[in-house]
Amino acid sequence: MNDIAVIGSGPAGLSAVLYAVRAGLDTVLIDTDFLGGSQASYSEKVDNYLGIPEINGFELMEKFREHLSGKPYKQIESAVVEIKKADNEFIITLENAEVIKSKTIIYAAGAFHRKLHIAGENELSGRGVSYCAVCDGDYFEGKKAVVVGGGDTAVDSAVYLSQICSEVYLVHRRKEFRANIVSLNKLRSLLNVTVMTDAVPVSINGEKSVESITLKNTVTEEETVIHTDSVFVSIGMVPKSSVISTLVEIDQSGYIAAGEDGVTSLPGFFAAGDVRTKPLRQVVTAVSDGAVCVSSALDYISKNF
Amino acid sequence: MNDIAVIGSGPAGLSAVLYAVRAGLDTVLIDTDFLGGSQASYSEKVDNYLGIPEINGFELMEKFREHLSGKPYKQIESAVVEIKKADNEFIITLENAEVIKSKTIIYAAGAFHRKLHIAGENELSGRGVSYCAVCDGDYFEGKKAVVVGGGDTAVDSAVYLSQICSEVYLVHRRKEFRANIVSLNKLRSLLNVTVMTDAVPVSINGEKSVESITLKNTVTEEETVIHTDSVFVSIGMVPKSSVISTLVEIDQSGYIAAGEDGVTSLPGFFAAGDVRTKPLRQVVTAVSDGAVCVSSALDYISKNF
Repeated sequence: MNDIAVIGSGPAGLSAVLYAVRAGLDTVLIDTDFLGGSQASYSEKVDNYLGIPEINGFELMEKFREHLSGKPYKQIESAVVEIKKADNEFIITLENAEVIKSKTIIYAAGAFHRKLHIAGENELSGRGVSYCAVCDGDYFEGKKAVVVGGGDTAVDSAVYLSQICSEVYLVHRRKEFRANIVSLNKLRSLLNVTVMTDAVPVSINGEKSVESITLKNTVTEEETVIHTDSVFVSIGMVPKSSVISTLVEIDQSGYIAAGEDGVTSLPGFFAAGDVRTKPLRQVVTAVSDGAVCVSSALDYISKNF
Repeated sequence: MNDIAVIGSGPAGLSAVLYAVRAGLDTVLIDTDFLGGSQASYSEKVDNYLGIPEINGFELMEKFREHLSGKPYKQIESAVVEIKKADNEFIITLENAEVIKSKTIIYAAGAFHRKLHIAGENELSGRGVSYCAVCDGDYFEGKKAVVVGGGDTAVDSAVYLSQICSEVYLVHRRKEFRANIVSLNKLRSLLNVTVMTDAVPVSINGEKSVESITLKNTVTEEETVIHTDSVFVSIGMVPKSSVISTLVEIDQSGYIAAGEDGVTSLPGFFAAGDVRTKPLRQVVTAVSDGAVCVSSALDYISKNF
């Protein structure tokens, strides 16, 4: 039986493996894809992981994986089909029919950003199209930005970008915002922010990088083109929690309910990284979670085995 | 007026500066010593900050500082004498008589480990003498370890090291332990752990690295020499919170009471890194805190200015 099964090989999962093997624990890492599963892999440039300046996201993940090379742990490339807990042990069934047993689980499957699914979005992703203002806003200093969305994250992103960019447009498909009123009032007080309601994006345009976005008014059906250097898509995140949604408590947005210690409603099952309820989803907060979850798992193992 | 004043230039403080300047905020960093103030600086080897394997602690801090080179922030080398909040602004008085005004404070002054103050301790620090089992235990795989202390951290450290080391001694000056009973029972069940009570360390001995520790029995005054490769000193940590101890709520151990968002009892004053109540004090958890505190500070600024 393993001491720790880590599910997910993004920053949180790899950090958990690092701390687990350093603690002398029998560790298995499970993921469907060890090379491209993580959000971070798709970042054109990461410059906010302290100590490793201006690096491509995929290369950063490579550095993370290299850190584990030669360390004693098992790696299984397969999807998790089911997780059960019986007699104080976890039984993980994989798509390849393997069954893994473990004293604890650190679940770090991550989350993905909802996409607009319009022309130009995929093609210009990382070249002006971004899903995270805190991650990428800095690269558009003094330039124009368009934020798409109507919730708290979209409004906060527009406020955030207004400090960095020359001009910011917030595009929302409805007239009413779901965002909180304090942030909305702040947004409306900003001189370099234009709010456009009843507008949906039709396409993101540009040759090598984003040059403009085409919007359609939902009432008049009129199309407008806004020249911009960047499009920040803020229409929500989807945590990868479906396989464990009946096993542990999930919050109203679908994230695993867990504090910074990663402790969930199910003893021995810990949640790390983007998949848990948390204030800020970044590479470094995920890496931190991995470390803390191993500490919590050690505590659990010491008390239960 | 500054948007953010960061106090402390360890991993938490430097990460806060990185996130703050990327958010376009006017940022000032204050510390008494920019080159040696942090715990991390004194680690002989750090191998648990994912992506930067096996590096000397001072060099890791150099990498952190280099990441900020050329970024737009101010740096003031002086001690903080007093912090006051008046009319929605913080007023920070420095030892060099300068007075700094800021909308928010991210307090990341850190903590230090209590020392034994015995012969050999300083001389062999980083060469067998360590203050953190999770940080350095891995370097003594298959070797002998002595843990000094009687609280939860000491007992947890001995349990942690028992998985890695061939033999572990726990040395405590009293007969009774302050540690919780579950951990103590676990410890006593481990075959490779020897508990020695009524024993105080007299000296740590060795030429180039730790070779042994001399103990004195507090009842019989008899001296014993234990051959060991490492001595883990676990007699407590002291958070550097004295200057703000009447300004914000402090927990019973002297740490600033704050959750993972860094929010304290005083609006606009955030705590990051070792100085706050938290489950695990590591370089990466401190770096994470710095990022999260900037996010909390942005939220506060957007709602109050």
